[in-house]
Amino acid sequence: MKLSNDKKILIVGLGLIGGSYAEGFTKKGYFVGAITRSQKSIDYALNKGIISEGTTEVTKEFVSKYDLVIFALYPEQFTNWIEKYQDCFKSGIVISDVTGVKCEIVYKIQSILRKDVEFVPAHPMAGREVSGVENATSTIFNGSNYIVTPTSDNTKGNIEFVASIGEVLGFRKVSYLTPQEHDEMIGFLSQLTHCIAVSLMVCKESKHLVDFTGDSFRDLTRIAKINEKMWTELFIMNKHELLSQMDLFLGQFRRLRDALAQDDKETMQQMMRTSTERRKYFD
Amino acid sequence: MKLSNDKKILIVGLGLIGGSYAEGFTKKGYFVGAITRSQKSIDYALNKGIISEGTTEVTKEFVSKYDLVIFALYPEQFTNWIEKYQDCFKSGIVISDVTGVKCEIVYKIQSILRKDVEFVPAHPMAGREVSGVENATSTIFNGSNYIVTPTSDNTKGNIEFVASIGEVLGFRKVSYLTPQEHDEMIGFLSQLTHCIAVSLMVCKESKHLVDFTGDSFRDLTRIAKINEKMWTELFIMNKHELLSQMDLFLGQFRRLRDALAQDDKETMQQMMRTSTERRKYFD
Repeated sequence: MKLSNDKKILIVGLGLIGGSYAEGFTKKGYFVGAITRSQKSIDYALNKGIISEGTTEVTKEFVSKYDLVIFALYPEQFTNWIEKYQDCFKSGIVISDVTGVKCEIVYKIQSILRKDVEFVPAHPMAGREVSGVENATSTIFNGSNYIVTPTSDNTKGNIEFVASIGEVLGFRKVSYLTPQEHDEMIGFLSQLTHCIAVSLMVCKESKHLVDFTGDSFRDLTRIAKINEKMWTELFIMNKHELLSQMDLFLGQFRRLRDALAQDDKETMQQMMRTSTERRKYFD
Repeated sequence: MKLSNDKKILIVGLGLIGGSYAEGFTKKGYFVGAITRSQKSIDYALNKGIISEGTTEVTKEFVSKYDLVIFALYPEQFTNWIEKYQDCFKSGIVISDVTGVKCEIVYKIQSILRKDVEFVPAHPMAGREVSGVENATSTIFNGSNYIVTPTSDNTKGNIEFVASIGEVLGFRKVSYLTPQEHDEMIGFLSQLTHCIAVSLMVCKESKHLVDFTGDSFRDLTRIAKINEKMWTELFIMNKHELLSQMDLFLGQFRRLRDALAQDDKETMQQMMRTSTERRKYFD
């Protein structure tokens, strides 16, 4: 069962991603509502025509209108919201999310959720270096991956339903991973790279080097501009996996360092050959 | 004294950078000759009109025609060439280079060079992920920095002369650094970033992750495609400086890792705030 135009969609959390979802759905002709903490964000979104209605207060009257509820909150707030307000959902609906870490959140939400509501987790792998609904635009989804991470609690029909969100919003590709596969992948491709960029950027006061900076340093540190609250929470939620990825990297970096210290050209060249070979897949 | 159009320019080493110099000078109306190991490269460059003449053999008859000789060789070959063939230079000329590490090469060349020839070192901070004269184009200089790294052996007039090469070839900016300042800067901004990219890329067989890869991983590993012979030589030539930069990075990366292991949110967030603050200078 795919998402059809008569479904009313509620976005909880109107930040960069929530706002971009709202804009994308509205553009496709859906009725979109929003609940968020700041009245300013609601006013902005109403003004821009991104949502049809919005509120800062969670009431059963408001929430029970909706057939699909998507949570674009920080992980901890997401759990709190479900615990506090799940009575407001209309019976039989599907809820989904945009959370960047899965194992830690998915099983917790599924275990506390009402049995007449189904949570199908998903992760849109899109973002910008800026935040807030003011920067929202569904164009960020165009070249990106939309990943559905179902568990054994989910039904085939509703997995398909949540997957079709990715199609409606114009993602490049819709994929399926288990929560475990997702967290390993995200730990390596996204979290580890952010750890590297941050560590490099804090190495030294580098303002005087700006004039000499070429593309390599700029590209590598682009993601060093980072929302510290959100990423700290995501890192800690994926701690076990991320630590093992960090240690893997540390080991390889130290291997290169020690080869250099010992003038071990063969090891250095061999690492560079492997690196060159593997990078080719990504062109 | 700036480089004027009547000067004949000899490029030694017709690879990506040497070829791009040749193309840039020829386009500006200079007479450009080349010496390189492979006849194929000479034929290609003659065919494309990038050089006016070229040879694979070093003779006094050929070399002594030229007023400016630029070495675009691997560092070790550069020293060997000077030792073997410096008798071929016309008296009173200026020679320069494009070598990416300075301390290790500059003082050595200046100490063995004939006293009637002046070596003014320079480093064009430009490159591509491909090599060879077939990929040469002077457009790679447009957004790039050209750095002159004179020593106390150099004269004001000839420093200015070599600086004007950067202007003629259309670099974005011409700067001056001591060889020591240059090697510290390049160790941090360029060599360390390449070490990081290579170490990340060799961490695991990642072909199956290609579909999930977003911009952050791609940007960070773009430079992991690397000429292993050249970079190993450059790393070893700048070993002392690069090791200290690698250790600086290792220390910060380990600090972030340990903060995560201990759920030390304050340290993690503080590093991310510093990182975000410092990255802003580079936008």
